[in-house]
Parts: sequence; C-alpha cells; structure tokens
Amino acid sequence: MASDNPIVARLVFQRCTKAKLLLTEDEPKDESDFIAINEGLLVFIAILGDITPKLQKLVKAICTTQICEKDGKYVSILDFPCDVILIPHFCLGGRLKGKSFQYHSIVSKEEAERYFKLINDSCSNFAASNSHWVSSGHRIYAGAFGIRQNLTVHSNGPFTHVVEI
Amino acid sequence: MASDNPIVARLVFQRCTKAKLLLTEDEPKDESDFIAINEGLLVFIAILGDITPKLQKLVKAICTTQICEKDGKYVSILDFPCDVILIPHFCLGGRLKGKSFQYHSIVSKEEAERYFKLINDSCSNFAASNSHWVSSGHRIYAGAFGIRQNLTVHSNGPFTHVVEI
Repeated sequence: MASDNPIVARLVFQRCTKAKLLLTEDEPKDESDFIAINEGLLVFIAILGDITPKLQKLVKAICTTQICEKDGKYVSILDFPCDVILIPHFCLGGRLKGKSFQYHSIVSKEEAERYFKLINDSCSNFAASNSHWVSSGHRIYAGAFGIRQNLTVHSNGPFTHVVEI
Repeated sequence: MASDNPIVARLVFQRCTKAKLLLTEDEPKDESDFIAINEGLLVFIAILGDITPKLQKLVKAICTTQICEKDGKYVSILDFPCDVILIPHFCLGGRLKGKSFQYHSIVSKEEAERYFKLINDSCSNFAASNSHWVSSGHRIYAGAFGIRQNLTVHSNGPFTHVVEI
C-alpha cells in the first residue's frame, strides 16, 4: 500500500564560501559556461514523486530555512542574503541495496526536468517578493539538467544537511 | 515505542577528483595540517545511536559499495582503488523542523568520538585485509573530530548519495 505521505524530493543543503559549477559537458568556451558564486548555498535536488502538492513546503525549505550564519545567529538565505545554486541531482535519489545503489524511486527524466524548472521558478518568485533580497542583488541560479556538472566547492567546514519533503 | 531497527548512522558519500581538508581551526602551519587526496571518496558521518550491532554493515557500506567508476563499471573504493576521507559531521544528523534544524537524534560528543574512531579503525582493518588495496598505497584518512573543518572539493559532477544504516 502506498504511504499517505510519500517523500517527493530529497535535498542536500551545502553551505559554501565559494563554488563554481560548469554548465556544459563540452570544453568550456568562457566564463559564461560556469555559475560562480561566493558565500552562499548549494541545494542538490532529486525528484522522487509529484512535487505539486508539496511545492510551497519545498520552496520554503530552500528559501526560509535558517541555515546561514550571521552575527552568531542562524538565518535564511533571504535574510543573510546570499546566492544559491539549485543543482538537479539524479544520484541523490539512489538507495543502497546490497553493494549498489538503485534508482527505482526517481521520476522519469521528463517529469524531473519539468519539476526542477517549477522549483527554480517558484524559488525565484518567492525570493523576488522579499525586498531585502531583491535590493541585495543576489540570485538563485539553476544548474544544467541531465548532464554531469563539474563542480568545485570551498567551505569553511562542511555544513551538509539532508531534507526530505 | 522505539523502532526495532533504528537508524544509527547517516552517511553522505561524495566522490571527488581532488579534495583538501584542514585538520585544525588554527592558522595552518604547513601541509601536515591538511589531508589532501586526488581521485577518491569523501564520507561524511553522523552518529545517531549505538553503532556496535551494525558496525560490519557500516564498514561494508563504506568499503564495498560500488560507487567508483572504472572502465564503465561501478566498483568499490578497494577495487578502484582510491583514497578515502572519513569526515565526522555532526550537522548531518539534523532534521528540519519548521525553519530550523534540530539535532536531538545525535549521540553525545563523547560517544560519537568513540564510535567514529571505531568506524575509522574498522574500515582501515577491513581495507588492510585486501591485498590489492594494500599494494596500491592508498589510505583511509580520518578528519578531525569536534572542530569545523575547512574543506575544498573538486568533482567531475557531484555524485552525492545518502546512506542510512
């Protein structure tokens, strides 16, 4: 029997002091092929089901969770404020069975791409309603879908959290 | 009622092409204050309970899971072979409640430190029984316990997996 409250997305939050994500699997031609941010948040996202009923919860988890440090307090990315990169991440949906990861829980590539775009648009809209954020000039960036994205992350201590929605 | 099969550890596996972990919160004096590896695996570890009954499962998850890529096949760190850094990571035990992470599930610092040492020793012993691994000269390194460890990770595409034991 299906659970009444299935997990529809698995996220990993990773704070960074600097990060650089390559958006192509080809040889990069120039800096426009990269997203580069300074202090900010990386959010790896695997889609495991229909996110529509939980979209607001998911967007709030990304935009309002108190995960950044400011003057000794934990505040959200909007209150920090800082840049964010949303990174679609198929593998994160894997479950270890025996010696190998299985990816049976993942939605189809087409669905995942559509949902990922929905999350990205919804987070950007949510952030755009916060005047403090808008005036800061920070952005929510989206990684490239369906390719292996070369990534470099600098952190002043890993600060990794798993969130299931 | 307590679950019959509680989760005792949450791990995040992250493959890297290069990683460098600072082992002190002071200004590093020289390269001996860092662990630096090339192609390999980072394993972030949060301890949520008594790992003793599941120690072998945990060690096998780290040493035998087919997570590295070799000639188009997935193989374990021992078969790849490559270096590994085990990184104690309190935060990874957090659960999102409302807007903030709560860390109620974590064992005490003293217990976590003892269990982390046990995992590190057990993984090193398991790997030492594999002659292919031993002759390769690769190592299982341990991060520093109880401090914020500055970390830089390069990856040819994030390849992050969550494993709960």
